[in-house]
Amino acid sequence: MTKDVKALAIEQAKEHGGKLEVVPKVKIDNKEDLSIAYTPGVAAVSMEIAGDKDLAYELTTKKNTVAVISDGSAVLGLGNIGPEAAMPVMEGKAALFKRFANVDSIPLVLDTQDTEEIISIVKALAPTFGGVNLEDISAPRCMEIEQRLIEECSIPVFHDDQHGTAIVVLAAVINSLKLINKNIEDVKIVVNGGGAAGLSVARIFLEAGAKNLIVVDKVGILNEEDGDKLPPHHLDISKLTNKDHISGDLHKALEGADIFIGVSAPGVLKKEWIKDMDDKPIIFAMANPEPEIYPDEALEGGAYIVGTGRSDSPNQINNVLAFPGIFRGALDARAKKITMAMKIAAAQGIASLIPADEITTTYVIPDAFQEGVAKVVAKSVMDAVE
Amino acid sequence: MTKDVKALAIEQAKEHGGKLEVVPKVKIDNKEDLSIAYTPGVAAVSMEIAGDKDLAYELTTKKNTVAVISDGSAVLGLGNIGPEAAMPVMEGKAALFKRFANVDSIPLVLDTQDTEEIISIVKALAPTFGGVNLEDISAPRCMEIEQRLIEECSIPVFHDDQHGTAIVVLAAVINSLKLINKNIEDVKIVVNGGGAAGLSVARIFLEAGAKNLIVVDKVGILNEEDGDKLPPHHLDISKLTNKDHISGDLHKALEGADIFIGVSAPGVLKKEWIKDMDDKPIIFAMANPEPEIYPDEALEGGAYIVGTGRSDSPNQINNVLAFPGIFRGALDARAKKITMAMKIAAAQGIASLIPADEITTTYVIPDAFQEGVAKVVAKSVMDAVE
Repeated sequence: MTKDVKALAIEQAKEHGGKLEVVPKVKIDNKEDLSIAYTPGVAAVSMEIAGDKDLAYELTTKKNTVAVISDGSAVLGLGNIGPEAAMPVMEGKAALFKRFANVDSIPLVLDTQDTEEIISIVKALAPTFGGVNLEDISAPRCMEIEQRLIEECSIPVFHDDQHGTAIVVLAAVINSLKLINKNIEDVKIVVNGGGAAGLSVARIFLEAGAKNLIVVDKVGILNEEDGDKLPPHHLDISKLTNKDHISGDLHKALEGADIFIGVSAPGVLKKEWIKDMDDKPIIFAMANPEPEIYPDEALEGGAYIVGTGRSDSPNQINNVLAFPGIFRGALDARAKKITMAMKIAAAQGIASLIPADEITTTYVIPDAFQEGVAKVVAKSVMDAVE
Repeated sequence: MTKDVKALAIEQAKEHGGKLEVVPKVKIDNKEDLSIAYTPGVAAVSMEIAGDKDLAYELTTKKNTVAVISDGSAVLGLGNIGPEAAMPVMEGKAALFKRFANVDSIPLVLDTQDTEEIISIVKALAPTFGGVNLEDISAPRCMEIEQRLIEECSIPVFHDDQHGTAIVVLAAVINSLKLINKNIEDVKIVVNGGGAAGLSVARIFLEAGAKNLIVVDKVGILNEEDGDKLPPHHLDISKLTNKDHISGDLHKALEGADIFIGVSAPGVLKKEWIKDMDDKPIIFAMANPEPEIYPDEALEGGAYIVGTGRSDSPNQINNVLAFPGIFRGALDARAKKITMAMKIAAAQGIASLIPADEITTTYVIPDAFQEGVAKVVAKSVMDAVE
């Protein structure tokens, strides 16, 4: 099956020469059309905007266009394969933006991996776009690049690899907790993986109300008592988590935990450890394409609810549930940033797509193709814009 | 009329929110589609390109995509109105690329007017595109930016404001000369205007065989004997032109001239001067929107053939005859540069669209909407690729 999909993907790319085309929305069939869509008519549109830059949002494609930008340094799980090789992924992402939320999206791959250069290029390009989706940029650079651009640009900048998974897994947890009748404030959550995605998961859960949260990285449980032995981004998150200053490994962290969230590596969660978690343990194992534990094993180990990033098992944590609607909402609201409140609202929007009485252990998160996902997410995000 | 066109242009921009949309060429209607167009299938496409970068030309939109890039420093005749206000023009240009030559084109406006920064941004973006059309960048920066990018990029870079007019007016002159039975080697040509477009006109005519050519700028006839009094780009062109070292003004330059080519300013060609030109004088007055002389006046003064940049009189010198086909040809040939030979071939291709026995004084250049223009130009350009 995987082999077929790969062959089909190459065939499709060859047949179409990439996945996108750029199409005029206006007709240009005679000289009069030309004089309206181009010179001399277009000069009037330019002068309107020269008089008031904000009119770019009414009179140009800026209002509906998002750049999908990558330097090719961390493409899917394939590593630093460079800008040309990153392009098919960016095209795919752009296709999803249009398909799911009618956002026009332009893939741009950059022939530089210098943090400062990337920041200044994106800033220089900002007048063209209504938003920027950063993609497949390696950690920890991706965190600095995103943070600086959020501060220095007046359009929303969002690194989906960090926040997309966090938003969707929060949605899945919101619905899972309804099923086990617990509140997010009361449960113990273990986030395995201290990379950019793991830190974003930890932050959104803290902001959503979690009080008892432990982050585990390859070195073990992050504990603020380890101080300067931790890299800065781990020290920062350790101060907000692990209030009991527990040390040890993942197995230790899992004692009495309600929820395991893996954004780490294949096979790192052992089946035997699940019995040491609390009643009705919830497992989201999102290492891709091989999860921290496969659903069958997790269920054998005693898990109550299991989700992965895979499309071949229930409760798929799929970013496509989030990013199209988030940018749709941000563009329509002309938001200058995508704030934490907007991310949490997006998660609540996704969760709300399944009525409480329809939630089951194998249906805590909607399907990507369920009708109206992006609309509901966009509405939630718009309502959360300050 | 002009007022109506302006109002209609603003109305159109408002109605559509800009002139372009980015549309997937592949269907994404279910999980299988998703796994082919996006993950996991897309990883196979990326790995193909990681193994051989050149496959980007087969497997991504690079093969058919041109960036239209401006810094907003010299937009139409409106001056330095900035990137946001330049956007409607870039969108219009992109729409023409698709309409006339099926080239997918992406408008990008930059929030910098620093020469070095623009050069490094375009270089960094190069992996995304099959070519770059620079647009509405002020002189003399535009010449340095284009030249450096041609040298430092492995994809074609072309500044249409410099070369588009030169190519189309050369086509018009090729056909005009058939009508008066003279050879380009034998005629005297006066190019009025020493800006970026004027210098490009002079260079393409020299390369096409012109021996007797004079460039006139605001200060008068460019004469290499003036040496260091001339700015470098004027000194360079003076060494290739005005072999008799004539000094004086435009009127002096026109004595015995066969052809006047104006890329200068409204009204600078006086009707009375035309009688001092040779028999059957040819006038291309392309200052826009007000030409160096209006056609009626030029004909009264004794002109035999007259063309302008305007759509409301015969022999319109319209860039849209050239750039779509030039990039179509360059993309299809995977040319790394657009050479002088390719530009001359484009002019010859445009000229060839009117059979010799159909050329008249009011029909020396085809209409922009004449069937097959871009195809013929593309073919000519491809044949000229080394």
